[in-house]
Amino acid sequence: MKIPQVLLIEVTHAPGRLAKVLAHVAEFGLTIQGLEAIKRTQDKTLWELSLNVDEGQEAMVSKRLEETGAAHVLGRSDRVFDRHRGGKIDVRSMVQIGDLKTLRDVYTPGVARVCLAIAKDPAKAREFTAIPRTVAVVTNGTAILGLGDIGPVAGMPVMEGKAALFREFGGISGVPILVESKDVDEIVHVVRTIHATFGAIQLEDFAAPDCFEIESRLRRELPIPVLHDDQHGTAVVVLAALISGARMAGFDLAGATVGQIGLGAAGLGIARLLLRYGVPEVIGTDLAEHALERLERAGGVRATLDEVMSRSEVVIATTGVKDLVRPSMIRAGQSIFALSNPEPEIEPLVALEHGARFAADGKNINNVLAFPGLFRGALDAGATSFTDEMLIAAAEAIAEVAAEHDELIPSPISHEAHDRVARAVAAAAAQPGTPIAYGQRPAGGEGAGTGTR
Amino acid sequence: MKIPQVLLIEVTHAPGRLAKVLAHVAEFGLTIQGLEAIKRTQDKTLWELSLNVDEGQEAMVSKRLEETGAAHVLGRSDRVFDRHRGGKIDVRSMVQIGDLKTLRDVYTPGVARVCLAIAKDPAKAREFTAIPRTVAVVTNGTAILGLGDIGPVAGMPVMEGKAALFREFGGISGVPILVESKDVDEIVHVVRTIHATFGAIQLEDFAAPDCFEIESRLRRELPIPVLHDDQHGTAVVVLAALISGARMAGFDLAGATVGQIGLGAAGLGIARLLLRYGVPEVIGTDLAEHALERLERAGGVRATLDEVMSRSEVVIATTGVKDLVRPSMIRAGQSIFALSNPEPEIEPLVALEHGARFAADGKNINNVLAFPGLFRGALDAGATSFTDEMLIAAAEAIAEVAAEHDELIPSPISHEAHDRVARAVAAAAAQPGTPIAYGQRPAGGEGAGTGTR
Repeated sequence: MKIPQVLLIEVTHAPGRLAKVLAHVAEFGLTIQGLEAIKRTQDKTLWELSLNVDEGQEAMVSKRLEETGAAHVLGRSDRVFDRHRGGKIDVRSMVQIGDLKTLRDVYTPGVARVCLAIAKDPAKAREFTAIPRTVAVVTNGTAILGLGDIGPVAGMPVMEGKAALFREFGGISGVPILVESKDVDEIVHVVRTIHATFGAIQLEDFAAPDCFEIESRLRRELPIPVLHDDQHGTAVVVLAALISGARMAGFDLAGATVGQIGLGAAGLGIARLLLRYGVPEVIGTDLAEHALERLERAGGVRATLDEVMSRSEVVIATTGVKDLVRPSMIRAGQSIFALSNPEPEIEPLVALEHGARFAADGKNINNVLAFPGLFRGALDAGATSFTDEMLIAAAEAIAEVAAEHDELIPSPISHEAHDRVARAVAAAAAQPGTPIAYGQRPAGGEGAGTGTR
Repeated sequence: MKIPQVLLIEVTHAPGRLAKVLAHVAEFGLTIQGLEAIKRTQDKTLWELSLNVDEGQEAMVSKRLEETGAAHVLGRSDRVFDRHRGGKIDVRSMVQIGDLKTLRDVYTPGVARVCLAIAKDPAKAREFTAIPRTVAVVTNGTAILGLGDIGPVAGMPVMEGKAALFREFGGISGVPILVESKDVDEIVHVVRTIHATFGAIQLEDFAAPDCFEIESRLRRELPIPVLHDDQHGTAVVVLAALISGARMAGFDLAGATVGQIGLGAAGLGIARLLLRYGVPEVIGTDLAEHALERLERAGGVRATLDEVMSRSEVVIATTGVKDLVRPSMIRAGQSIFALSNPEPEIEPLVALEHGARFAADGKNINNVLAFPGLFRGALDAGATSFTDEMLIAAAEAIAEVAAEHDELIPSPISHEAHDRVARAVAAAAAQPGTPIAYGQRPAGGEGAGTGTR
């Protein structure tokens, strides 16, 4: 499994020297993820060279650079670790408690009045507590990023990252909750027992297939919005990219057969949302039988890899397997979204060379674009659940911002995009909606039901 | 039950007019909790008048003031509610995410390196997450302040208040966790399953007797410090007040028989800590048999109210019952701590008039003085549990600051006191200690055991 590393290298000022460094890196089949000048002296520059490397590969690259004299490797950059030192989030007081009077207002005895007001009318908790603008970011650590089951504590930096992004782009509070359990009943029970602390629940990096049951049960049992980001946050951004792609390449999403390779949490979330959005046919393939069954329940059709490649106008790959799509499999005029990170199922340039009309990888398909606005919008509207209409509104808002800037996808740090998503979601939440579920349309099956809650 | 209210009253400028207002208030048996001029015009002043009133009493006071022309009552002050609007806490990002590079450091792809480092060496979570400076503030809402079982959501303003105080005076993050359960097994199970999120657990406003079992089980089962504030936070501040009282009034705590009236969570926590501190004899009375049994297990002796009053050099009352101690019960030379808020078991002035050597009520015995430093000290030291030695160190630190300023108890907003508590607790945590438990000394029974963990 590849992980990002940043090497600190010193390169002498000489024509062609940096090119030589990069050429050596290329010998290992690695692409340059980043290159930044940190310090410049009379005769040398100190560079941060970012690569995605396998275990041990970094040492080989370093050795090669030293042996050939292309660069002097000082070591790894500590920048990423420095940014994590002490953690990334803090709980702050919104009131400065500088005198006794303030203490007596915000704590005893004054606080008793507020408690009694809420005891009398629980709806007042929306007004006088932080609950309605706080989201639990819950994980059991079984599918942290692409790293697999590394446990919830090792996943904490991701949860803190989500919380930091909730603050920065959604203006709301994210509270990590690490659940040490792999038992679906236990996880559902624990989250249900503490849910009153929060205005909404974000499920994060739970492994498939348990993630589906955990989410659908919590969604049914809790009176607040619940969303598994890996399924639906990702689906929103992919749908936005497809809408943008259709605009840029001129294909017709509403008339397309979309083929999917890989039906994990992300793949299934995408399939489900595309069908709800109105894509007439979604065919998909996966190695796991339960994934194919779930696709069928969502209204999709199971297929082989060959069938997906030969029958689809739009192909979406979310397998995590580099180079899974061979150039010879590309059909002329197809649109290819090879979304696995850090390395796509087929490089977009290669796909285009072999006849694709349009091709993109997952580098810009960042779910950061979706979740802060999704939750902010749901909380602002006082929604009790997420609906398909809210997800679609979010995707359309992202695609609109992209269109205005002539991009496939806006930058994930675009406050404009986040604000537009939040507003669109809040507006959609105010309308009747269809609960997110993998059941058959229009009725019956798991979680499907009436239009509103 | 009395709750604090703040009336907004307009009083004309005339000699004796404000005195008349206060005299009318006194007719209802109420004491003035606060009086503050908000606005002054040519002929009138707008005052905030704070009272502790029973249901309906406020209306009677208002009516009286209006009828006699002493003041014009404009209504209740919204100040306390205004300070609670939107809640009192926020989760913030410690990193400003203003560019893509920062996003890629604190979230994907950079965060993966930090996750892997923790997966490889879990101790690294201390360095690169917020966990070791975050305390869960857990309640099930069964004993919120003196308000009783009003449920966890109505208790949220108290939990947010604690979190705000953790930030202001401990420099650490408090995260409220509302547990919707009254089942001891379930509560223990839920807290245990999510404990890895936190560096320590503060149990808050759980009703007796369940609070004892919940705490002792969590203490045994979790590898992080657990403290029920209502028992031990309160006990620390009361012990500090007793040390100060002994200094001020010249009684000898180390040779005293201490009598306790009321053995709820606070009373038992006090009894236990006094015995550990070295008080030779603690006798106590309560209506509940389980409380008396628990006192005996802690090494105390059960007694009647009469025995407590006739045999004790120092009397501590924590019953919540106003005027429970009649003046005739006071023995000459006794020291009286009538700690119930807002109204003591006997007014200190009355006790002194009837022969007490020393008397104090609970108005300044504020557990705010203890818990921020207790947790900060425990976290700083990387303690795995609280010990009696840590509680005693905290009490002695508070008493020392009080002695330096010639007070019974420092102001709860004294940063000096909080910082000294934190340092003293951290130092004590570095030494071998005795686990907090209600079992017999020196060994056996519930939770008692080896000196260190």
